[in-house]
Amino acid sequence: MLSSSKHRIEQIEMAHGAGGKATRRLIEGLITPALANPVLESLSDSALLTVEGTRIATTADGFVVKPLRFPGGSIGSLAVHGTINDLAVSGARPIALMSALILEAGLSGEVLEREIAAMAQACANAGVHIVGGDTKVVEHGMADGMYITTFGIGIVDERLTLGAQNLRCGDRVLLSGPVGDHGITILLARGELDLEAEIESDTRALTPLVDALCASAAPGLRWMRDPTRGGVATVLNELARDCGMAIVIEEEAVPVRDVVRGACEILGLDPLHIANEGQFIAIVAPEYADAALSALHAVAGGEEAALIGEIQASPPATVLTRTRYGGTRIVDMLVGDPLPRIC
Amino acid sequence: MLSSSKHRIEQIEMAHGAGGKATRRLIEGLITPALANPVLESLSDSALLTVEGTRIATTADGFVVKPLRFPGGSIGSLAVHGTINDLAVSGARPIALMSALILEAGLSGEVLEREIAAMAQACANAGVHIVGGDTKVVEHGMADGMYITTFGIGIVDERLTLGAQNLRCGDRVLLSGPVGDHGITILLARGELDLEAEIESDTRALTPLVDALCASAAPGLRWMRDPTRGGVATVLNELARDCGMAIVIEEEAVPVRDVVRGACEILGLDPLHIANEGQFIAIVAPEYADAALSALHAVAGGEEAALIGEIQASPPATVLTRTRYGGTRIVDMLVGDPLPRIC
Repeated sequence: MLSSSKHRIEQIEMAHGAGGKATRRLIEGLITPALANPVLESLSDSALLTVEGTRIATTADGFVVKPLRFPGGSIGSLAVHGTINDLAVSGARPIALMSALILEAGLSGEVLEREIAAMAQACANAGVHIVGGDTKVVEHGMADGMYITTFGIGIVDERLTLGAQNLRCGDRVLLSGPVGDHGITILLARGELDLEAEIESDTRALTPLVDALCASAAPGLRWMRDPTRGGVATVLNELARDCGMAIVIEEEAVPVRDVVRGACEILGLDPLHIANEGQFIAIVAPEYADAALSALHAVAGGEEAALIGEIQASPPATVLTRTRYGGTRIVDMLVGDPLPRIC
Repeated sequence: MLSSSKHRIEQIEMAHGAGGKATRRLIEGLITPALANPVLESLSDSALLTVEGTRIATTADGFVVKPLRFPGGSIGSLAVHGTINDLAVSGARPIALMSALILEAGLSGEVLEREIAAMAQACANAGVHIVGGDTKVVEHGMADGMYITTFGIGIVDERLTLGAQNLRCGDRVLLSGPVGDHGITILLARGELDLEAEIESDTRALTPLVDALCASAAPGLRWMRDPTRGGVATVLNELARDCGMAIVIEEEAVPVRDVVRGACEILGLDPLHIANEGQFIAIVAPEYADAALSALHAVAGGEEAALIGEIQASPPATVLTRTRYGGTRIVDMLVGDPLPRIC
C-alpha cells in the first residue's frame, strides 16, 4: 500500500544526526521543502550570498560532541575549527565568528572557562575573532554539560568558482591527510571499547592548507568539502549524486593510520565512513594535480596529502573503490549511526 | 579577605541565563575577557562589520523556550523573530538567516514538522530566507525536545548611526507597545500558576515598526534595543551604564496589560523585568519624538506605542521611575531568574 506519508518521519532517531542517509532524508524530506528558497537548495551547511557586489560565505554548525574533552581537542576548539573549515572549503577567508552557548545548570565554571579558553586559542591560531554571541542556560541534565553553535562569515576568494557542476572526467581527487582520526579518537575516549591506542583527533583549522592549495591550483580547483560526519564516503556520494558522474578511489592510496584501521576492523566499520575534523577533499583538474599535491606537502600538516582517485563518466552517480587486487566495490553513504555525537 | 577568585563562577546556575545581573557577570567575568577583541567589547548579541565598504550586522541567538508551543507562537517562530529583531534594532535590514537545530532522539516528526513550518511562515511574513543550517541529534532527554540557534545577517541602514554615546539630555524614550506579554504568557502556559487568562506572546518581527520609525525619524534616532530577557529594566540599566546618564521613566506612561499587571502583583514581579519578544525601545531626539510616535501609531501593531520617559544628566548611570504620586524609585537590573527558559 502506497501512501503519501510513506517517507514521513515518525520520530527523530540518533541516526538522523549522523550525517549519512538518515540525515539527508530528514533534511530533504522535512526541512528544505518547508523552507524552500533558491540559496537553500544546495543543502549545504554554508551558503553563498552577494552583498553589494562582494561574495560572502556564511555557515552554521552545532556541536554536541561527547565527551567534551578528548585527545587532541575539545568541544571549544572543535566549534571554532569546524566553522572555519566550512568557510575554507567554500573558498572563503573567515572574517568573523559568532558563538551561541547552551549551558546546563550545574556545569562547573572551570569547565566553561577551559572551553572558552580553547575557543580563544583556536581563534588566535587562525587569526579570526568571535565578534558576538549568546548564552542560554537550561536545567541540569538538559544539555549534557554544554552545546555550542558557531556561525561564520567569510569573503570568497575571487579566483575560485567551486561547484559539483564544474567536474570533468579525468579530474583528480585530492585528500589532505589520513582519514578517521577524529571519529576513532572520540570512540576510544568514551571508553566503551576495551581498547587503548595512541591517537589524537585531527581537529585543526584547514585555512593554511586551503591557502596553499589555492595559491598553487586556483584555476584548476573545481570543488572542496571537509568530510566530517559520515566521512569521506558520504561526502563523495553526495558529490557523485550532484555531478552525476563516477568517483573512483584507489583504496591503497587513501592514508589510514594503523590504529584507525585496526579499530575499524574490530568494529566492522569502513574508515571511509569515519568522521574527520581537520581534512578536506578537493577535486582538481588533472593538469594542476601535481602542483597542488606538492604545495600541500610543503605545508606543516599537509605531509600526508594524497591523490586518491579520479572522476570518470560511469557508472553514473556512484562512488567506487578499486582494491589492490584490481577488484572494485561500491562505497555507499553512511547508514545508521555507529558513532553518535562525534562533533 | 580579598581574593582574585572572588568573582569566580563556581558553577552555572539558571540565573546565568536570565539576561540580568548574573548573565552580565558571566559574560563580562568569564567569556569576553578570554575572547577579547575590538568588536566584542560592546557585549551585544549583534556585531557590526564592514565588508568591502558595506556595513553589515550579524547576530546569533539560541532558543530553549519551554514549552515549545505557547499562545501566540512557538520556538520556531520565536527563533526567526528574535534574530530578525536583533538585526532590526541594530538598524539593519535582514538579508539571510541560518539555523542550527539540536534535536533529541524520540522527538516526534510531527512536532519537528510543525516547528519547521512555523519558521517558514515567520520567514515568509518577514520576507527573509533561511539559507542554510545544521542538524544534530542527542540522546532522549538531552535537549528537552529541541533547541534552535539562529544566525542573521543584515545590511545596515546608511541613514543610521546608533549607539549609547549618541545620547543627549532631553532625548525621549519611545516604547513600541505593552510590556511583559511574552514572559507572562510562557509562565501561564507552563501551568505552574493556578491562573488562566487571555494573553498571547507578543512574538513578531519588528521590521515594519522599525521601518516606520526610520522613515519618520532617522536623523534623530540615537539608539534601539529589544527588551527580551531581563525586560525593559535590564536593557535600560545597560544603556544607563553605557551612556553614564539618568533614564527617567514615567511609570504611568508604560503600557502594561491588566493580565500582566495582575500576574506580576501575585508573583511580586515588576512588569519592567518581564521578557518581551515583539517590542523595542528607541531613544529619539526630542524634536523627532512626536513624528516618530505618530508614525508608529499609523502602523498595524504600533497603536500602543508610547513616549515613556527621557534622558537626564543625573543621577549618573541610573534608571528611575517617577510614580503617579510624584515619587521616584530606582529600577535595577533583573536579579536571579524568576522565569527560566523564556526564550
